[in-house]
Amino acid sequence: MNDRDALTAYAASFVDELAQNKMKHVVVSPGSRSTPLALLLVEHPDIEVHINVDERSAAFFALGLAKALKEPVGLLCTSGTAAANFYPAVIEAYYSRVPLIVLTADRPHELRDVGAPQAIDQIHLYGRQVKWFVEMALPESTDEMMRYARTIGARAVSTAATEPAGPVHLNFPLREPLIPNLEQAKEYRQNKMTPAVMIENGALSLSDSHIEALAATLSQAKQGMIVCGELRHPKMKEAIVALAEKLAFPILADPLSQLRSGKHDKDGIIDTYDTFLRDEAAKEAFRPDVVLRFGSMPVSKPLLLFMKKQKQAITLVIDGGAGWREPAGLATNMIYCEEKDFCQRVCEKIPKATEKNWLGLWKTVNGATKNALSSIRDEVELSEGKLFSLLQDIMPIESTLFVGNSMPIRDLDTFFLSNEKGIKTFANRGANGIDGVVSTALGVSTVSENTVLAIGDLSFFHDMNGLLAAKLQKQNITILLINNDGGGIFSFLPQANDREHFETLFGTPHGLDFSHTAQLYGGKYSKVQNWDELKQVFTESFEIQGLKIIEVPTERESNLQKHRNLWNFVSQEIKVVLDREIS
Amino acid sequence: MNDRDALTAYAASFVDELAQNKMKHVVVSPGSRSTPLALLLVEHPDIEVHINVDERSAAFFALGLAKALKEPVGLLCTSGTAAANFYPAVIEAYYSRVPLIVLTADRPHELRDVGAPQAIDQIHLYGRQVKWFVEMALPESTDEMMRYARTIGARAVSTAATEPAGPVHLNFPLREPLIPNLEQAKEYRQNKMTPAVMIENGALSLSDSHIEALAATLSQAKQGMIVCGELRHPKMKEAIVALAEKLAFPILADPLSQLRSGKHDKDGIIDTYDTFLRDEAAKEAFRPDVVLRFGSMPVSKPLLLFMKKQKQAITLVIDGGAGWREPAGLATNMIYCEEKDFCQRVCEKIPKATEKNWLGLWKTVNGATKNALSSIRDEVELSEGKLFSLLQDIMPIESTLFVGNSMPIRDLDTFFLSNEKGIKTFANRGANGIDGVVSTALGVSTVSENTVLAIGDLSFFHDMNGLLAAKLQKQNITILLINNDGGGIFSFLPQANDREHFETLFGTPHGLDFSHTAQLYGGKYSKVQNWDELKQVFTESFEIQGLKIIEVPTERESNLQKHRNLWNFVSQEIKVVLDREIS
Repeated sequence: MNDRDALTAYAASFVDELAQNKMKHVVVSPGSRSTPLALLLVEHPDIEVHINVDERSAAFFALGLAKALKEPVGLLCTSGTAAANFYPAVIEAYYSRVPLIVLTADRPHELRDVGAPQAIDQIHLYGRQVKWFVEMALPESTDEMMRYARTIGARAVSTAATEPAGPVHLNFPLREPLIPNLEQAKEYRQNKMTPAVMIENGALSLSDSHIEALAATLSQAKQGMIVCGELRHPKMKEAIVALAEKLAFPILADPLSQLRSGKHDKDGIIDTYDTFLRDEAAKEAFRPDVVLRFGSMPVSKPLLLFMKKQKQAITLVIDGGAGWREPAGLATNMIYCEEKDFCQRVCEKIPKATEKNWLGLWKTVNGATKNALSSIRDEVELSEGKLFSLLQDIMPIESTLFVGNSMPIRDLDTFFLSNEKGIKTFANRGANGIDGVVSTALGVSTVSENTVLAIGDLSFFHDMNGLLAAKLQKQNITILLINNDGGGIFSFLPQANDREHFETLFGTPHGLDFSHTAQLYGGKYSKVQNWDELKQVFTESFEIQGLKIIEVPTERESNLQKHRNLWNFVSQEIKVVLDREIS
Repeated sequence: MNDRDALTAYAASFVDELAQNKMKHVVVSPGSRSTPLALLLVEHPDIEVHINVDERSAAFFALGLAKALKEPVGLLCTSGTAAANFYPAVIEAYYSRVPLIVLTADRPHELRDVGAPQAIDQIHLYGRQVKWFVEMALPESTDEMMRYARTIGARAVSTAATEPAGPVHLNFPLREPLIPNLEQAKEYRQNKMTPAVMIENGALSLSDSHIEALAATLSQAKQGMIVCGELRHPKMKEAIVALAEKLAFPILADPLSQLRSGKHDKDGIIDTYDTFLRDEAAKEAFRPDVVLRFGSMPVSKPLLLFMKKQKQAITLVIDGGAGWREPAGLATNMIYCEEKDFCQRVCEKIPKATEKNWLGLWKTVNGATKNALSSIRDEVELSEGKLFSLLQDIMPIESTLFVGNSMPIRDLDTFFLSNEKGIKTFANRGANGIDGVVSTALGVSTVSENTVLAIGDLSFFHDMNGLLAAKLQKQNITILLINNDGGGIFSFLPQANDREHFETLFGTPHGLDFSHTAQLYGGKYSKVQNWDELKQVFTESFEIQGLKIIEVPTERESNLQKHRNLWNFVSQEIKVVLDREIS
């Protein structure tokens, strides 16, 4: 076989194996060295190719697709710094356990470290931030090497998807000629070839006696609580709710837990803890003897500070991915067991709890807080808190809400409360960056209905390049652009007192008029002036195809003040309730 | 001392040591964990702080500053993916030997790998793409630890600047409180403190006998040639020109060699080799017996292909940075010696060459090629080649020209020929990425007069975020935006024959109207329709403050055809000359 035949056989076998293992989407950035893989991916009938010119945005777009689909998504670029642009999203994928298959083309060995163009050291380019790295062999078409290529393909998909899911990186040295024979490539497709190897993954599971011992511990708890951070698999919902009900434990449900919205039983769902756990009296009233944690650590800083104080509690962290998601540093038991399996099997072993005062107090305080928080609805001027409070009313049923980091996710936590709508929530909470958020949301919107992105101006700015995908692929998304002209979160931090340097280093006002951005990318743009206008434009946006940007102007200074006033008001209300309930 | 005092003493000592070692500029991206370093940098009287919100652009901006200043520039960001956004520019700095001091704030040890927010593994975050990595100690204010902080500061600047220059990375774990005492910080400044240690760097230098032996080899050459790639230090110019003259060797001068423009003697400068070395007859006529190479490998692919054939030649690669910049793979001698020192000392040891036919033939063919290339000036419609041909006429004296990768640098090579103007040329040729070019050019323009960036549309798109710095800092730059609506270079590659997938995967037309980009960033925008308009708008742009974007619309298809026609024409002209000269 000549070089081209070898390239075709080897690369087509590899690509086909990805498809056979159900990698259905790949995001491709244009490049020369990656040509053979790009052509074979676009030609494969079972793989959908999404083009994204800026590799940083491309990688976040793939991350969004993988988050929404809950399955491995591919990513391809050429050699050199192109691959380095993938790094932020690769890191986010690693820490948020999202499966990505990163394919980078590379110069062959003889062109490395000799000053050849677009040649950098791509071996372990992403360091420890990937689950698996493979420096691929040069293309060969012996049976053995084609089976090797297929096996690596199968292993890549499996490794990316296995809990804890995450990114894998395969680096392909490729020589010219770079054009495979696309007719011949069809010979290496699935209907004609058997897959290399079936990889069958078990899940972590405790023994029966282990489960029984834990069930005994839990059923003895007088003051237990469940804390749910981001949960990837919505099917976990029912199992956790059932366990909580049987134990009569409250569920402190992070906005990304998917437990705040939907038709499931929300009786024991506590959704305002981020507000009332700022209150000293409430923190004193709610000292648990057992804490059961699922998912990542929730967004709420008051909750984290509260948990760091609970040295008296038995704290069980359940993690089917066998990680160490415990920044409070007080876990007594790390339990590596698939979460749904854990809930269902423990549930079977415990009696129904009878004592409910503890749960009742949580619900009472939660109700009072919710009541107090609803006072934000009286605000006349546009404000960040009220916007998130309104979302549960104005979002469509079964829609998708992606929120930016920094202030939006915190406001979501405080103000987006239980509802029946089945709104799916997403954010990039692996490394909490403000980068790549637009593209991640666009990736999500590609496979979701009625996607809304609520994002601050700096984060929006950071990834405006991502909007090119919305323009070219005519994607539907409604962007709520909360523009306070700079870094709003810094006003909440101590540096806000340094008047001399604050605006330069932290406030960073940019004065950008984002209507130009909307025009550049062919989006419909509205800058709303009041709540009625917001509701109208927002509701109409779901009738319009394509990119819709709704700018909500707010002020950093008054936003800080409004948040502080509200928390003070809530604190007074909670005091009344606690005095009544506990005395 | 309390925690805050320790932070102040330690971080202020470190920052002051950077300043004492002449790190005069730092680019800062806003963040929380990096607060102490940001405040101390902005407060230091000898350090200028440049703010840049998007860390990817920030890092390229720092790269540009460091390129133009030829001295180490600092870079600071907060923890998490912010730091990963620096990666493309860090890699470019590593391969193009540009000194950067990358400072990243990090979570302290107890908040690592426990699911804490914005905490990723930042140890060796940039892998092998930095010269030095230091995980800093936590702040302490003992004499020993303050000296440690100062010593690391001194070593960072020195290591970044030592040949081969490059990036260093210091990672700072920092605990709250994050606000240093700025009054107290003044106590740790240079007028009051002596620097930690003076680091005195020698340069690589060969022995006299070694120089004599090499001089003997060179003076015996009948058909020698000098090849100059990118040269960082313009003072090398005279030494190389003097050596070439004494040897009667032609100098094949890359557009980034700084040898094509200026008042130096350009008699032996060959500037059209990229064109005539496409011709088989010319390649046959110019077989050297000695090749002397300085700087990185030139841009020209025809030159590289030519050099790969010269197995008969003694090829000496002179590299004061002791690297391996030899993609042709035919070096006979790698000579690690400071380049100017090498030229001057060899020059003293050789007699003036008398035989000049060899040099004469180079000059004749170069002249004929130049003549043939000038036919491009007759083109009526806007075209990419003619634009670069015109630049030597219309650029101001002593101005600065930054060119994008992919097509612009190649067109510069082909069409930007010898002139007296002293135009400095820059490009990112370490890894040749199309990313970060706008910001690198803006960094250059910060410390240069009359900076012009000539860039293609995809590369411009990739780093539009960089333009925020131009808006906020009211920077002067003229951008020639060559818009052929997609990836023009791919039309020159074999995949252009695949009509089914070409536009989707490679051409990638985006249809962006960049007038909106100009409006977003407050730039003056003109889309020129003809050459007169171009010349007028271009000339006027140097009278206008701020950002000027001049869009030059071209067509990918006709561009390819024009280049091919021109090369065919040149080939015929060369044949005539060679037939006459050699027979």
